[in-house]
Amino acid sequence: MAKTLTEFDTIAAISTPIGEGGISIVRMSGEDAVKIANKVFKGANLTKVPTHTIHYGHIVDPDTGKTIDEVMVTVMRAPKTFTREDIVEINCHGGIVVTNHILQLLLGHGARMADPGEFTKRAFVNGRIDLTQAESVMDIVRAKTDKARQVAVQQLSGGLLKKIRAMRKEILNTLANVEVNIDYPEYDADTVTAKQMADTSQSVINKINQLLKTAQEGTVLRNGLATAIVGRPNVGKSSLLNYLTKSDKAIVTDVAGTTRDTLEEYVSIKGVPLKLVDTAGIRHTNNKVEKIGVERSEAALKKADLVLLILDSSEELTDEDMALVKETDGKKRIIILNKTDLGQKITTAGMRKLTSSAVISTSILKEKNLDELENTIKKLFFSGIENSNDQVMVTNQRQTGLLQKAKKQLQDVIHAVNKDVPVDIAQIDFTGAWDTLGEITGDSAPDELINDLFSQFCLGK
Amino acid sequence: MAKTLTEFDTIAAISTPIGEGGISIVRMSGEDAVKIANKVFKGANLTKVPTHTIHYGHIVDPDTGKTIDEVMVTVMRAPKTFTREDIVEINCHGGIVVTNHILQLLLGHGARMADPGEFTKRAFVNGRIDLTQAESVMDIVRAKTDKARQVAVQQLSGGLLKKIRAMRKEILNTLANVEVNIDYPEYDADTVTAKQMADTSQSVINKINQLLKTAQEGTVLRNGLATAIVGRPNVGKSSLLNYLTKSDKAIVTDVAGTTRDTLEEYVSIKGVPLKLVDTAGIRHTNNKVEKIGVERSEAALKKADLVLLILDSSEELTDEDMALVKETDGKKRIIILNKTDLGQKITTAGMRKLTSSAVISTSILKEKNLDELENTIKKLFFSGIENSNDQVMVTNQRQTGLLQKAKKQLQDVIHAVNKDVPVDIAQIDFTGAWDTLGEITGDSAPDELINDLFSQFCLGK
Repeated sequence: MAKTLTEFDTIAAISTPIGEGGISIVRMSGEDAVKIANKVFKGANLTKVPTHTIHYGHIVDPDTGKTIDEVMVTVMRAPKTFTREDIVEINCHGGIVVTNHILQLLLGHGARMADPGEFTKRAFVNGRIDLTQAESVMDIVRAKTDKARQVAVQQLSGGLLKKIRAMRKEILNTLANVEVNIDYPEYDADTVTAKQMADTSQSVINKINQLLKTAQEGTVLRNGLATAIVGRPNVGKSSLLNYLTKSDKAIVTDVAGTTRDTLEEYVSIKGVPLKLVDTAGIRHTNNKVEKIGVERSEAALKKADLVLLILDSSEELTDEDMALVKETDGKKRIIILNKTDLGQKITTAGMRKLTSSAVISTSILKEKNLDELENTIKKLFFSGIENSNDQVMVTNQRQTGLLQKAKKQLQDVIHAVNKDVPVDIAQIDFTGAWDTLGEITGDSAPDELINDLFSQFCLGK
Repeated sequence: MAKTLTEFDTIAAISTPIGEGGISIVRMSGEDAVKIANKVFKGANLTKVPTHTIHYGHIVDPDTGKTIDEVMVTVMRAPKTFTREDIVEINCHGGIVVTNHILQLLLGHGARMADPGEFTKRAFVNGRIDLTQAESVMDIVRAKTDKARQVAVQQLSGGLLKKIRAMRKEILNTLANVEVNIDYPEYDADTVTAKQMADTSQSVINKINQLLKTAQEGTVLRNGLATAIVGRPNVGKSSLLNYLTKSDKAIVTDVAGTTRDTLEEYVSIKGVPLKLVDTAGIRHTNNKVEKIGVERSEAALKKADLVLLILDSSEELTDEDMALVKETDGKKRIIILNKTDLGQKITTAGMRKLTSSAVISTSILKEKNLDELENTIKKLFFSGIENSNDQVMVTNQRQTGLLQKAKKQLQDVIHAVNKDVPVDIAQIDFTGAWDTLGEITGDSAPDELINDLFSQFCLGK
């Protein structure tokens, strides 16, 4: 896809996470990026400096003459840049106020505030990357585990792109044959043509199936597995939470500008990113009587993909325990028989008679058997991919949805051929599948989809 | 202060705020920075590139051959760098995992994890900046309002440094005269010498007093004014909190790796940075019966420099109200008579009879008279500095403490001279004041203090 007739304007945004840190970057991309930066920069003349160089100086408000900050400015000229446009990056002292002030100054001198994802969108529109690579950029940013990062880097290097393009080529080659046959019906090659289409469809379906198999793991890697810790009061929920979130297992993330209620906690358990659900509920009741335990559990359950149900194995099962066992029955679940150090009245064997879920006996307090718990979590989610190196994976709903659509279209082709539907009718779905696969890479994606997709990116990317 | 005999090793840290963003920077400083970066970088040969240039490539683990991320690497060679040492900055995709991975790789190939503030410390030790400038670097990062940023930038450019150095020179000049007089007692100039010392002491004390006057405002600008919103249930605490934290007034900050309980909210009210205390207490009881209102208020009060006490003016004063009025009596306080839209039973005039605190009638819900509230907050804290441009201010406890110590030493000099204490005895305090002022800039600061000071910086700075 090439630039539209109107040349792009110059966009600006803060490209580093918001917060207090050593350095923040305000980034501009577009024709006027260097000119605008030069207006507010006191130091070298940026319009004259060589490309890909960095310069010391100050950002000065040209209207008031006041110095805003001491900075380093990088000038990168098109086309060898992230967006294939001129890019200027201002590295300033990393505070919220100073960084905002510099951004405002650029906006006041000709730049426009970038939309979320607009830098990456330009990289796509200017042909430097395809859609799956653009998505992988965000996957790298959001990666919660090293495995997730690895899969995303693989995708950024074009792994998925190559597989999709190969499938499209397979369809296109067959389509070319079909066209020949339709144009020269005297050969009466209808049957041959139909068989070619059906064979190609089956071949591509097989490849799609392989990719779809990776989708669940890919999505978990990308988004984290929503995990709820449930159980009646005093069974050890807080202890488990503390164990999981201690040391380097936990990543606490937050989106600037939101209140604490949206804060999310991630822990990486043997490579499986768990997104802990409603940890606030557990934390807040930590040292008090947990009067609202079950009520809280119910809310957490609704959001969870994985349930860690804790029972106090030193006591007989209570009605409340049984209610929770029953309630979580449909979920992917691990039942934890805790407090083994106090003597077990509920045994692993006994519990396994009641359920087909994984059952593990632990003493969270004494950190006994927690490695088995971690291994069980890992086994539940990574059957095949652990040993694969640099495997191509489908990592999001958009890709999964389009693959399923293409598969359906190709199945319809096979169905039509089997029913002796005329070739030019079956061909409609066959061509449709080619289009659908193109949407994954952006080769045939409508503008609307493009805009929608990039708007999910974070600002400054 | 020059480098010690042992050359510095190479340090590395993540220099951007932790979180999800477009770009993160991993920064190295030291002799081996370029060599280490080159080991893990696939692209240009960094040891051969010109200084102050930026290069596209990939970070690749040399042991496994695996690509970690697509990056831009900046090479800046000594001495024209932030630390006056070789600096390499790796701009990577801004995720937590990928950024950490790159840092770990550098640490595995010869770099050492930087201590908090160690980059800035090297800039100080290598003579590029003095201590007040180093502190201003952190002030810029932490600035919560534009005014705070402005004062910090002024300090970074050496404003406070110049004033302190001028005072030290004044003392030193007099000391030179004293030495002459002591060496040649035949002139019998003891009286003249003593008078010179006393005069200089008074002159410097006057200058110190001017700086100390700025200290309170300076500290507020730097740290924010701890502000508690208190009142019994349903008087409008949540409404006020929502008003204050809505739109662009609020900056929510968080320190990565901590739980939500340490999250701090700042609002900028007409340039005054308020650090809101215990907003969680107010938020969490938002839609429930506020059973623990007073209890919460008491906890918040302890931490507060400013109290916003809300009363429901549509009802008579309750015992609970009176208890809060009494309890907050010693504090800097604004009493807000809220809900004027429901008819006032407590009037401004009536309340003023009970207290000398500022009293304001508002309807927070209807946003009536809130501008007066904001102006009152502003007036309470910025009497003189609002109109001053680029004023030099003392912005922290360390500076304030040392100024007070120097002042005391100079007062002792005057006292001694008045009592005809021998000049060489009075001179001890006079020299002491010179030393004390030197500690502010780091000209005569002990190593211990230097280490302590920089350890308060954030990582990567």
